[in-house]
Amino acid sequence: MSKSQLLQSGMSTPRAPAAIDTTDGRSRAVVDAVLPVVDGGRFAVKRVAGDTVRITAHVFTDGHDAPRVMLQWWKDGDPNRHELAMKLRYNDEWLGDFVPPTIGLYHYTVVAWVDAFESWRHELERRVDADDIRLAARVGATEIAAAAERASGGDREALAGWAKALEAGAADPDMEVAALKALALDDDLGATAGRHPDRSLETRFAAELPLIVDRERAACSSWYELFPRSAGDEPGRHGTFKDVETRLPMIAAMGFDVLYFPPIHPIGREQRKGRNNALVTEPGDVGSPWAIGAAEGGHKDILPALGTAADFRHLVAAAKDHGLEVALDIAFQCAPDHPYVKAHPKWFRWRPDGSVQYAENPPKKYQDIYPFNFESEDWEGLWSELKSVFDHWIAEGVTIFRVDNPHTKSFAFWEWAIGEVKREHPGTIFLAEAFTRPKVMHRLAKLGFSQSYTYFTWRNSKEELTEYFTELSQGPGVEYFRPNPWPNTPDILHAQLQGGEEAMFKARLVLAATLAANYGIYGPAFELLEHLPRNPGSEEYLDSEKYQLRHWDWSPEAGLRPFITRVNKIRREQPALRGNRSLKFLDIDNDQLIAYSKESEDGTNVVVTVVNLDPRNTQSGNLTLKPYDIGVPDDQPFQMHDLLSDQRFTWSGQSHYVMLEPHRVPAHILLVRRRVRDERDFDYYV
Amino acid sequence: MSKSQLLQSGMSTPRAPAAIDTTDGRSRAVVDAVLPVVDGGRFAVKRVAGDTVRITAHVFTDGHDAPRVMLQWWKDGDPNRHELAMKLRYNDEWLGDFVPPTIGLYHYTVVAWVDAFESWRHELERRVDADDIRLAARVGATEIAAAAERASGGDREALAGWAKALEAGAADPDMEVAALKALALDDDLGATAGRHPDRSLETRFAAELPLIVDRERAACSSWYELFPRSAGDEPGRHGTFKDVETRLPMIAAMGFDVLYFPPIHPIGREQRKGRNNALVTEPGDVGSPWAIGAAEGGHKDILPALGTAADFRHLVAAAKDHGLEVALDIAFQCAPDHPYVKAHPKWFRWRPDGSVQYAENPPKKYQDIYPFNFESEDWEGLWSELKSVFDHWIAEGVTIFRVDNPHTKSFAFWEWAIGEVKREHPGTIFLAEAFTRPKVMHRLAKLGFSQSYTYFTWRNSKEELTEYFTELSQGPGVEYFRPNPWPNTPDILHAQLQGGEEAMFKARLVLAATLAANYGIYGPAFELLEHLPRNPGSEEYLDSEKYQLRHWDWSPEAGLRPFITRVNKIRREQPALRGNRSLKFLDIDNDQLIAYSKESEDGTNVVVTVVNLDPRNTQSGNLTLKPYDIGVPDDQPFQMHDLLSDQRFTWSGQSHYVMLEPHRVPAHILLVRRRVRDERDFDYYV
Repeated sequence: MSKSQLLQSGMSTPRAPAAIDTTDGRSRAVVDAVLPVVDGGRFAVKRVAGDTVRITAHVFTDGHDAPRVMLQWWKDGDPNRHELAMKLRYNDEWLGDFVPPTIGLYHYTVVAWVDAFESWRHELERRVDADDIRLAARVGATEIAAAAERASGGDREALAGWAKALEAGAADPDMEVAALKALALDDDLGATAGRHPDRSLETRFAAELPLIVDRERAACSSWYELFPRSAGDEPGRHGTFKDVETRLPMIAAMGFDVLYFPPIHPIGREQRKGRNNALVTEPGDVGSPWAIGAAEGGHKDILPALGTAADFRHLVAAAKDHGLEVALDIAFQCAPDHPYVKAHPKWFRWRPDGSVQYAENPPKKYQDIYPFNFESEDWEGLWSELKSVFDHWIAEGVTIFRVDNPHTKSFAFWEWAIGEVKREHPGTIFLAEAFTRPKVMHRLAKLGFSQSYTYFTWRNSKEELTEYFTELSQGPGVEYFRPNPWPNTPDILHAQLQGGEEAMFKARLVLAATLAANYGIYGPAFELLEHLPRNPGSEEYLDSEKYQLRHWDWSPEAGLRPFITRVNKIRREQPALRGNRSLKFLDIDNDQLIAYSKESEDGTNVVVTVVNLDPRNTQSGNLTLKPYDIGVPDDQPFQMHDLLSDQRFTWSGQSHYVMLEPHRVPAHILLVRRRVRDERDFDYYV
Repeated sequence: MSKSQLLQSGMSTPRAPAAIDTTDGRSRAVVDAVLPVVDGGRFAVKRVAGDTVRITAHVFTDGHDAPRVMLQWWKDGDPNRHELAMKLRYNDEWLGDFVPPTIGLYHYTVVAWVDAFESWRHELERRVDADDIRLAARVGATEIAAAAERASGGDREALAGWAKALEAGAADPDMEVAALKALALDDDLGATAGRHPDRSLETRFAAELPLIVDRERAACSSWYELFPRSAGDEPGRHGTFKDVETRLPMIAAMGFDVLYFPPIHPIGREQRKGRNNALVTEPGDVGSPWAIGAAEGGHKDILPALGTAADFRHLVAAAKDHGLEVALDIAFQCAPDHPYVKAHPKWFRWRPDGSVQYAENPPKKYQDIYPFNFESEDWEGLWSELKSVFDHWIAEGVTIFRVDNPHTKSFAFWEWAIGEVKREHPGTIFLAEAFTRPKVMHRLAKLGFSQSYTYFTWRNSKEELTEYFTELSQGPGVEYFRPNPWPNTPDILHAQLQGGEEAMFKARLVLAATLAANYGIYGPAFELLEHLPRNPGSEEYLDSEKYQLRHWDWSPEAGLRPFITRVNKIRREQPALRGNRSLKFLDIDNDQLIAYSKESEDGTNVVVTVVNLDPRNTQSGNLTLKPYDIGVPDDQPFQMHDLLSDQRFTWSGQSHYVMLEPHRVPAHILLVRRRVRDERDFDYYV
């Protein structure tokens, strides 16, 4: 692909919204502040197919004339534009809703014009003087005759007739003014005229705003990460895709819907890391899966010990049968013996001694990895090849990619590559694994990543969690940044988990799973309470799977699996937990207890979660929850059904005592059930 | 002027920021969120010449390389761009300051690139391994040699020598690594290399943001409105420009700097209004000055009874000698006998009976006024003519225009006309008299009006004033909307003033004059406590000057003149009162007392104003003011010097008792004086 082709795709460099002008000074309508918008239309707003997309705009004109306002929306490349009338809410703010029916890239904008016919009608309505009304009727006749000219068929005939009748009525001294006014204000004919407005002076908003419509899993998903090489059932044997297949029923039963693997490619032998990140290997050491590429191949190949391409395709299909989508880890970097290094030396930055500086993410050093040079003079070749890696795995059935450290690769590349892939495969989901500075993480989300890792792992106190998730659910990122919090990852064993307390693991799981619509865990380490760090103060696991095979207990009842199963079931069954925007933190007078509510878009499903952040002590407090805020009359009791314990509590008023014992369950996930009374005067809660 | 010329001026229709792309996929720097900005660069930010303009931007790159960031600014049309290095504040936010030296239109933008040399230096700094350092020295030698190629003269020589020395040192096993590292990190040579960066892959922010730099009076002014026809000293005689000249010393002594006249043009005879807005005139009725145009001429002519064009020029010059600028009222509308009506019938909307619908601003009816039709097919002719009205009066010495009801004329026209006028006469100031819906008022300010009337007249309670002036001083409009509050206008005698209480008049004056940097009054009605409405419930003055001559007491000591003189003197002397952004409302435990502070940009001048909103009763309360917040150590006393009464109070701590007796003075304007101790241990407050 040539450079000009790459740039023609339009997504590789910053770009201002397209200017669309009216080029006629007589255009008097003003269209301003069309929302939602990300950076003036430079980036797309994200939604899910079937969602109602609400657009608002400020529209007005000079003087007292009536503007008419239309929302236009269309699928990228589709010449047909849908158009619908927006409604005035108040204070010059107009709104319109539409539902994009399918996934893909859309655009929307707002057009408006000053409507002479409507302005005339409004004006006429408040006239009382007979001469005024007769004159107004003649003015209207002219407007209506013009509308007739623009119409055809029955409308044309009806309007022409109406214009004539008004003209004649105005001239007829015997026609009563009240009758004339009634004729002029005829609703049906008015609606007919309204269908044929003069739009020659319409104003278009200066930008056509982009909208990415994803499938629901982009917005709501439960991830389970495992290392296929540890999926075997005998200690010491390298696991395979076939082994993973035997784990599918258990993982699906736990309620996950995304099964994510670290890289599955041949692992470099040069500079291979030993166990616990040692710089030298022992015989049999398997190396890090992120040190991609060896004689057997690179990013489009499979580590032979895991199986064949056919095995992989079989696994992907089997997973799908279990309701699981396979997510692949895409790490754009090379082991020193990756075939790219010899075939494309221009893609690396060579030093005077003929070496390449290995990758670093201070303080971490990746001696087994060469980074790509995105300033390569062959950047077009590099971009095309990297994008073809996605194409390859999509052809193998992969639909979701977790991208490793995207913030150490060129932003322009991501915007182009994700745009291109989604143009051809709009259902593809990209998760950005960028644990870096906030503005960089936001940029990646704007560029096209569907989901983003978060700082959740390091947000532990009530204050930190409240502040962070308020930002995530209410801040500007809400239009494009979909958080995907994880209690642990192969790289992050937070100090909070290093005590190995079951209550802490449960609390962190409930927080991730209920605070955000997307979440994930790295298992089986998580549910088996793996908690020893490589060394004190480290967030690295001891004997990490990153550098060695592990052998796990795969029985369905082991560790937290039953608990996780229940939490995921609650997530699936409660629409309130499928979104982020409704999140509201509730007042509770104990710093170790955190409480928040979420509700479904229609407000009928309300879930209140309370978590004890202290893994050792029972904590209690008074939770403030006003019945009115959850759709219950203030004087009525309501039932709180704890979906974790299946207990039901009847609450009334606005202050509610809550106690959580960490050695039992450190959380409530409470479904609000409202009272109904049947014909026999029995009360039920539904 | 042709339509295409009008539109070429580029200001008549919505327009997106100009796209400036790098067109090279290797550009790795990201420039985002350049502030301040209005609507993505669609409209200009406003500042005053000599102000420091602070620009911030989010700039970063992938990975760990160092970006370099430059702020570019230039005067419109000047091919020379100033460029200065921006500094990293924190969290990828960079800042740069510049001071536009003269008035006019400016632009600014931000460019950035990944600096290979700086990145190499940062990298080298943390290296300790000897081999690493020798290799790094060789890498650096290549970068420095490349910088030498870009340099010339002494820099080129110095860099070439440095590159050679590094190369040689790295190869010399006898050279100590510490010495080699020191050579590589040489600060002077580093600075030399920094002057010759490789900017071939630089990224430009997607927009060049506009900045209107005005003279100070656009941002800080005190207006006095009078009807010249009432300026005479004999009752019943039509006042003249010569009469106005005799009033100049008194008006200047009161401390005003803008003298504003309602329209001074010939007044229509057809449909002329009588006294108190009567639909029929009595002999001798002078009509409304806003019913512009008659046989004697139109918008470029002077009502003969006021004097000649020469008299007007003389008055403008005399006013200037008194430090007063004359502001003219521009009301784009015509009496039925305005010469335009016959000469340019296309500029009006004719009804089938050959009439034109008179102007209305419901519920007000202006039977004596025809509006222009901005949808005229000759809109270009109309625009050109209206713009030439400004040109005419600028040629006559006028520098400030108060525009009547701009919201009932086309927005596109204003943007074009103000842009054109200011391009030729950048010192021109436009005040928008639009009392209408908030978004419309904001749009006019964005389009170019220098100052805007406000809702102040109808914001009366402490809560209303606090909310409104917080919005005006802290809201998004702060970049472009300069409020100009008036306690009264010829159209607005608020109910609060209709009691005629001196305390209320004084309180409203102090509020307007200290809450906003621009303010004005309609006199002598205001200072003479004119307060009778035309009828109960009306905001119209009884016997309004709008329809008849009035005779006023012009003596310098009459009514509130001494009080106003003192308030304006305080405004002139206290830099804190020259801006709006520093406004902070202070807590005071009495709803009838409002208190707020303002400080100068450097924080040295702090003024605290307290106003009793109750004109009848003494009110007292405890004001919370922490010494630390006004630059005083918390344990030290400070002096509050009431600039109205000249009393001085010594305060300490953070709670301060305040009492205001409305029949004396309903306000304090307190200058904070900080304690200094001289060499003899005497305390002074300065």
